[in-house]
Amino acid sequence: MRRMSRKAILCALAVFVVLYFMFYHNSTCLHGSTVMVPKDQKFMYDHSRRAIPYYREMPLIFIGGMPRSGTTLMRAMMDAHPEVRCGEETRVIPRILGMRSNWERSELEKKRLEEAGITSEVIDSALAAFMLEIIALHGEAAPYLCNKDPFTLKSSVYLKKVFPNAKFIFMIRDGRGTVHSIISRKVTITGFNLNDYRQCLSKWSTAMEMMYSQCLQVGAANCMPVYYEQLVLQPELWMRRITKFLDIPWNESVLHHEDFIDKPGGVSVSKTEKSSDQIIKPVNLEALTKWVGNIPDDVVKDMVNIAPMLRTLGYDPEANPPNYGSPNSKVADNTLHIQQNVAFWKQREEELLKKNPADLGQPNDPVVKPGAQRVVVAHHQP
Amino acid sequence: MRRMSRKAILCALAVFVVLYFMFYHNSTCLHGSTVMVPKDQKFMYDHSRRAIPYYREMPLIFIGGMPRSGTTLMRAMMDAHPEVRCGEETRVIPRILGMRSNWERSELEKKRLEEAGITSEVIDSALAAFMLEIIALHGEAAPYLCNKDPFTLKSSVYLKKVFPNAKFIFMIRDGRGTVHSIISRKVTITGFNLNDYRQCLSKWSTAMEMMYSQCLQVGAANCMPVYYEQLVLQPELWMRRITKFLDIPWNESVLHHEDFIDKPGGVSVSKTEKSSDQIIKPVNLEALTKWVGNIPDDVVKDMVNIAPMLRTLGYDPEANPPNYGSPNSKVADNTLHIQQNVAFWKQREEELLKKNPADLGQPNDPVVKPGAQRVVVAHHQP
Repeated sequence: MRRMSRKAILCALAVFVVLYFMFYHNSTCLHGSTVMVPKDQKFMYDHSRRAIPYYREMPLIFIGGMPRSGTTLMRAMMDAHPEVRCGEETRVIPRILGMRSNWERSELEKKRLEEAGITSEVIDSALAAFMLEIIALHGEAAPYLCNKDPFTLKSSVYLKKVFPNAKFIFMIRDGRGTVHSIISRKVTITGFNLNDYRQCLSKWSTAMEMMYSQCLQVGAANCMPVYYEQLVLQPELWMRRITKFLDIPWNESVLHHEDFIDKPGGVSVSKTEKSSDQIIKPVNLEALTKWVGNIPDDVVKDMVNIAPMLRTLGYDPEANPPNYGSPNSKVADNTLHIQQNVAFWKQREEELLKKNPADLGQPNDPVVKPGAQRVVVAHHQP
Repeated sequence: MRRMSRKAILCALAVFVVLYFMFYHNSTCLHGSTVMVPKDQKFMYDHSRRAIPYYREMPLIFIGGMPRSGTTLMRAMMDAHPEVRCGEETRVIPRILGMRSNWERSELEKKRLEEAGITSEVIDSALAAFMLEIIALHGEAAPYLCNKDPFTLKSSVYLKKVFPNAKFIFMIRDGRGTVHSIISRKVTITGFNLNDYRQCLSKWSTAMEMMYSQCLQVGAANCMPVYYEQLVLQPELWMRRITKFLDIPWNESVLHHEDFIDKPGGVSVSKTEKSSDQIIKPVNLEALTKWVGNIPDDVVKDMVNIAPMLRTLGYDPEANPPNYGSPNSKVADNTLHIQQNVAFWKQREEELLKKNPADLGQPNDPVVKPGAQRVVVAHHQP
C-alpha cells in the first residue's frame, strides 16, 4: 500500500515535469521564434528602448493633398496623438516616387530594366524598403507611423500596392484659399507661376483632379477626403471620424496639438517648413476667408472655367466666399483668443524658430466673451 | 531492497525526462530564435527553395571602372563561379547614388533634410535598403552577391561606409583602347562627345583619376585594381589573385565563363547591354590593340597631356601600342580559335539575342596549332 502510493507520487511527479516542460517549451519558444517575428521585419526603438517593429504590411498613414490645404495642420493633430507619429515632410519620398514614374514612362528604359532582372516587383520592393526606412527613422518610434509629403497622394494607387494596409487622408481646400496662400506666402511649387492667379488656379484644379481620382481608385475604405474648412470648423467631429477611419483609439490630445509642439512624443516642427508658424496656434478660423478680395476680378468672373474642380468638390465658384459652415464655440473662441494676443503669438513664433521648447508657454487667459465675434454662416456640407 | 530499486528507477526516469526536455527545449528554441536570425536580415530563395540571408554587413562585391574596360568580362567570370552572382547592370543603383550626392552638394537641401530628421544616417540606411533589395532580387540567389554598374566605383568610399564588408574590383584599361571602343561601338556616356577622341580621352583621364583616388581611400585590403590587359593575357593568374582577395574558394569555372551563358546559376546576359556579344566568347586578345591606328595623329602626339592618367596607371603614352605582356598559351589558342570560327560566333551571337540557351552549342574543334600566331610581346607589369 505505502509502496503503491510512493510509486504513484513519483509517477505523478514525472508526468507533471513532462507536461510542465512541454508547455514551458512552447510558451518561451513562441516568443523568440520567426513565426512570431516575420523575417523581413525591422525594429525602431522608443525613448524607453522598447523595440517597435516596422514592415511593409503595417498600417501606414499617408496624409497629402495640395500644399497649403491644411496638410500640416492635419499631421500636427495626428502627431499630438500619443500612439501616432508623422513628423516633418521628408522631401525624399516624393522624389523617389518621381524617379520610378520616369522609369515607368520610358518604354526603352522599362525593357532595359526587365532585361537586367529589375522587374516591377523588384523595384517595388526596393522603393518600399527605402520609404520604410525614411518613414520609420526620421522621427520618434511609434506604433502608428504616418507620412506627410503633400504630393505623395498623386501616387496613392502605387503606394497602396507596395503598402497593402496603408490608408490615405486626402486634404481638400477651396482652391481660391489654397492659391491665395501659395501666392501670398511665396510657396514655390514646380509649374506654379506665383504672379498669376489664373494659372495657379487652373494648375490647382488639374492636380486636385488627379489626386481625387487616385483617392477614388484606392476606395473609400482606404482613402478619406477631409475638407480643411470642415476640419477647422468642427475639429472634434472630424478627428473622431478620422481616427475611426484609421482604426486608431480616440485621444483628446488630437484636439490640442498646440500643447505638444516639439515635446517628446508630440509634434516635431521644422524651422524650414512654411507652415510651422501656423501650427503652433490652436485650431482657428484666421485663414478661412483671407483670399476674399485678393483675386483679380477677371479671374473671379471666369472661376467656373478656370478651376472646374471647385464645383466637383462642392465649392460654389460664384460665391465669394461660399458658406463653409459654422464653427463650434471652442474654435470661435480660439480665433478670438488669437486675435486678442497677436504679440504673444508673434513672440511664440520667434521662440519656435529658436527651437527652445522650454520657452513655449501659454498666454495669460484672455477675457473671452464666449460666442462674441463668432463667425456665423449657414452650415454647408460639401 | 526491491522497494528502494523501484524508487531509484522512477527517480532516474523523472530526472531523465527533466534533462531531456531541458535540452530539447534549448535546441529547438535556438533555431527559430531572433538570436540566430538578426532582425534586419532578409532572405532570398534559390531554385531548391533554400533560404539565403542578405543584409548590410554581408561581403558584397562591387565591380566597376570606366565602361568598355572589361567590367562585363570580369562580372561574367565571377558569375561563372557557382557561389557568386553578379548579373546585369542594374542602372538604378548609380542613379540613386547620384540622387544622394545632389542632396549632399546643396547646403540648403541638407539643412532642410536635417530639420526633417533626415540625417545622413537615415539616408544611408534608406539607400542601403534600396540597393540591397535590387542587388539581392534582380538575379538568382547566391551566397556571394556582386554588383556591376561601372560608375558605382566613383562612390566606393560611400559604399564602403554603408556596406562595411564590401570589396571592390576596379577595372583599369589603356584609355586609348577604352575610348576607341566607346567611340567605335557608339556607347553613349553623359559628357562624352563620341566624335572627339581628344575630349573623350581627357574625360577618361578625369573619371579614372576620381575612381582611382576612391580606390586608394578604401584601401588595398578592400579595393583591388585589375588591369584588363593583364586579365585577358593571364586569366588564371589573375582570377586566383582576385578570388583570394575576395576570400572566395577557387573554382575552375571562372576560367570558362563562356560555358555558363544563360545557364541556371551561370552568367545571365542582357539583350540590351553592349558587351553581351563579347562575353559569349572565351577570354581572348581580339580587343587588346584594336585602337592602334584609329586615333587622330594630333591626339596621339599630345597623348601625355590629354590623358595624364595613362602614365600614372603605368601605360606608356608614347608607345602605340605599349607592351601589355605575353599571353598564356590557352588565351592565344582561344584567340586563334575565334579568328578561325568567325561564322560560328556570329551565329551564336544571334542565338543569344534570341535568348534560346538550348541553341548555344560549341564549335567543332578547329585545327589549332598551339602557339601559332601567338601575340609575343615583352612582359609588362604596370
